[in-house]
Amino acid sequence: MERLHQYVNSKADEYIEWLIETCNQPSVSAQNRGMSEMKDLVKFFLRKINAEIEEIETDGYPIIYGEINSGKPKTLTFYNHYDVQPEDPLHEWTSDPFKTDIREGQIFARGVADNKGNLISRICAVHAYQQVYKELPVNLKFIFEGEEEVGSPHLKYFATNFPEKLQTDGIIWEGGARGAIDKRPHVSLGVKGICYVELICKGANYDLHSSEAAVIENPAWRLIWALNTIKNEQEEILIKGFYDDVTPLTQKDKQFIQTMDFNEQETKDMYGINSFVKNVSGYELKERLTAAPTCTICGIDSGYTAEGSKTVLPSIAMVKLDFRLVPNQTPERTVQLLRQHLDSNGFEDIEIKQSHGLTPFNTDTEHPFINVVLKSVDNVYKEPPVILRNLAGSSPMSKLLNETSIPAVQIGVANTHSNYHAPNENIFIDDYIQGIKVTANVINNLG
Amino acid sequence: MERLHQYVNSKADEYIEWLIETCNQPSVSAQNRGMSEMKDLVKFFLRKINAEIEEIETDGYPIIYGEINSGKPKTLTFYNHYDVQPEDPLHEWTSDPFKTDIREGQIFARGVADNKGNLISRICAVHAYQQVYKELPVNLKFIFEGEEEVGSPHLKYFATNFPEKLQTDGIIWEGGARGAIDKRPHVSLGVKGICYVELICKGANYDLHSSEAAVIENPAWRLIWALNTIKNEQEEILIKGFYDDVTPLTQKDKQFIQTMDFNEQETKDMYGINSFVKNVSGYELKERLTAAPTCTICGIDSGYTAEGSKTVLPSIAMVKLDFRLVPNQTPERTVQLLRQHLDSNGFEDIEIKQSHGLTPFNTDTEHPFINVVLKSVDNVYKEPPVILRNLAGSSPMSKLLNETSIPAVQIGVANTHSNYHAPNENIFIDDYIQGIKVTANVINNLG
Repeated sequence: MERLHQYVNSKADEYIEWLIETCNQPSVSAQNRGMSEMKDLVKFFLRKINAEIEEIETDGYPIIYGEINSGKPKTLTFYNHYDVQPEDPLHEWTSDPFKTDIREGQIFARGVADNKGNLISRICAVHAYQQVYKELPVNLKFIFEGEEEVGSPHLKYFATNFPEKLQTDGIIWEGGARGAIDKRPHVSLGVKGICYVELICKGANYDLHSSEAAVIENPAWRLIWALNTIKNEQEEILIKGFYDDVTPLTQKDKQFIQTMDFNEQETKDMYGINSFVKNVSGYELKERLTAAPTCTICGIDSGYTAEGSKTVLPSIAMVKLDFRLVPNQTPERTVQLLRQHLDSNGFEDIEIKQSHGLTPFNTDTEHPFINVVLKSVDNVYKEPPVILRNLAGSSPMSKLLNETSIPAVQIGVANTHSNYHAPNENIFIDDYIQGIKVTANVINNLG
Repeated sequence: MERLHQYVNSKADEYIEWLIETCNQPSVSAQNRGMSEMKDLVKFFLRKINAEIEEIETDGYPIIYGEINSGKPKTLTFYNHYDVQPEDPLHEWTSDPFKTDIREGQIFARGVADNKGNLISRICAVHAYQQVYKELPVNLKFIFEGEEEVGSPHLKYFATNFPEKLQTDGIIWEGGARGAIDKRPHVSLGVKGICYVELICKGANYDLHSSEAAVIENPAWRLIWALNTIKNEQEEILIKGFYDDVTPLTQKDKQFIQTMDFNEQETKDMYGINSFVKNVSGYELKERLTAAPTCTICGIDSGYTAEGSKTVLPSIAMVKLDFRLVPNQTPERTVQLLRQHLDSNGFEDIEIKQSHGLTPFNTDTEHPFINVVLKSVDNVYKEPPVILRNLAGSSPMSKLLNETSIPAVQIGVANTHSNYHAPNENIFIDDYIQGIKVTANVINNLG
């Protein structure tokens, strides 16, 4: 692959131009800004590599499906998305989010890390491969959706209605990062799921004077007591059956967890904390991060919360809970167990409103496709990879893949300080170029 | 006293004019509006009854002290205040808050209930007594402060530095109400105290992504666990020693509590609730209302509380707690016990910020001055009085009286729908006129 690596180096400026052109086109799905222009631009780039293009219409933005049939036995698929997050707060950007700026080896633009840098790097890899070797060793498929930032509402529709388009030997999923400091590439095999709920407890019809609390029930207190039955100080989630579905870790899973770096002292200093929950450290800490389900209070609100002292008995109390789920747990089952738990603890009156749910997904750590990717990473980077069974963040992998046994691995061109969804989103030029090479190696190694 | 009652009836229009003049003068201590003009107006009315007037200067607004020395053995004191609450929200008023409006037997104005109606009714009572009987049967003292609505910061200074001015045989305190529906007059012998604190629990230096909750402590959860140790579902306050100082109720206390009316079904319907705390009813409910200390969550706040689902691990959590205290408890002791409780339960890190504290006060229910007042009430009203050992609201009684054994009783011209501190503050003309008569009867019966 040395010839290909050299070719990519020689085309670096042009490939960066392709990226700039893509990032300069706003495509904010949440606000319907530039989506149609962006769709055309994605098709323009797919045509550069002679892909057959099909627009899968949905009620929202179309999924752009591309295919390059090389008549080979194996097929590799790329999943990416062409929409981006809104750019606000604008005043915190040091350059225009939709006017790509390059400073000291870094490229700044909305979407450069999430997910346009990755999307274009896949196209560049195919382009380079075609230029250098003429013939592709695998068939290629491209699933480029425009709704990832608004929850991928039509990805399941695609999976259900176009099983033949989904059929493949492995997916390179969305993107991935390198350590911003240690430069180790991350290879991720899945994501935790999420179940986000609001619990609502109601008291009197309206707020009362706090002196009435002697005889009128306080929904804020009831919510405290209910929450206290959900998780204890040992960080154990007390909902009956909550841990029952969790798939136990295999030896390989644990081996992959070991590859993680986690600078405990640096993290403590940065966050101003003295210890981690349950005083965990070392392997145990890494395992919690990647493989432990959680129950987090993301927000709680009741009564008077501004300055000073208002003597009020609140009429309503609300908490937002975020459960991070691990393989084999589901948001549906979590809500069901939570309902049973509240009922059996005398909190039948507390309402559950589910606002968000994603099933976890991970590729079986023994699947041979993982080795194809790890070998490709090894071909390009000097540092050994960090292998993550489950990213803590969420992603719609399960919507596309949960009914299949298709392996999906995340690698990409971002870094751990890329500011996803935040001002000054960025990637390093070097990571972009190396990312193109890794993707080309995956094409080669799968073939 | 029949002659006096008739005289008051004949002078009703003039006495109402005095009240209107007083209410039309804004006197918002919190905003320093009209305070000097109001002070002069109070002195003008005190001069009508030939009181010797002294202005007690403070760092804030002066206490107007008046005295009528009749050379009699007994002395009666009136405590009132000449400042009022701000009038906002203005748009909820149906008439100008500082342009007194009379509609269908009700007088509407800011301060008409709290506390100008009462203040002027005391002066009218003395005036009527002087006109009808020429000679007063008691010496009179007037303590009219201008800072009650901003926490009476100089009342303790008055008590400490002018003990001879405080010396008296009984105080008619501030004001009181009649049932808006049942028309029963309320006689109150004291107030609960209050201890208002904020508990603050801190985590990382800044909000983190909720996926980090697998290893980083969540201050919202810590606050839940801490709160759960403070009060249980049986409404028992679990702070060690919290109930130790509470003065047990006497037979007379319980007898007075029995005089209360409490329409349980009406209250349930109005508030949309099915039951009261601990399912109390009847005497037990009334006793809780007047004699039980409470611990109320007035507000709780942490993390993201707006619409939708933000996956955040909060860096700080805060709760506002209002303890209503009963005789012999103090805010100082409450904070001390709370600190000890948190420390001994492993919550040394949770900060306590006390924002407000008032010691409870009540007159010994056996004190003969109470009978003087009850007899006076009986002389005027047809309905039997509701006798309250401790009002649930707070008042600065303890600041003036806690180092003394002076009895203080609250009676007045407001009603239970008077909208204290709220838009459309009002009293009934009838209650104002009857209130003047009751005060005149107290003068007579004490003499």
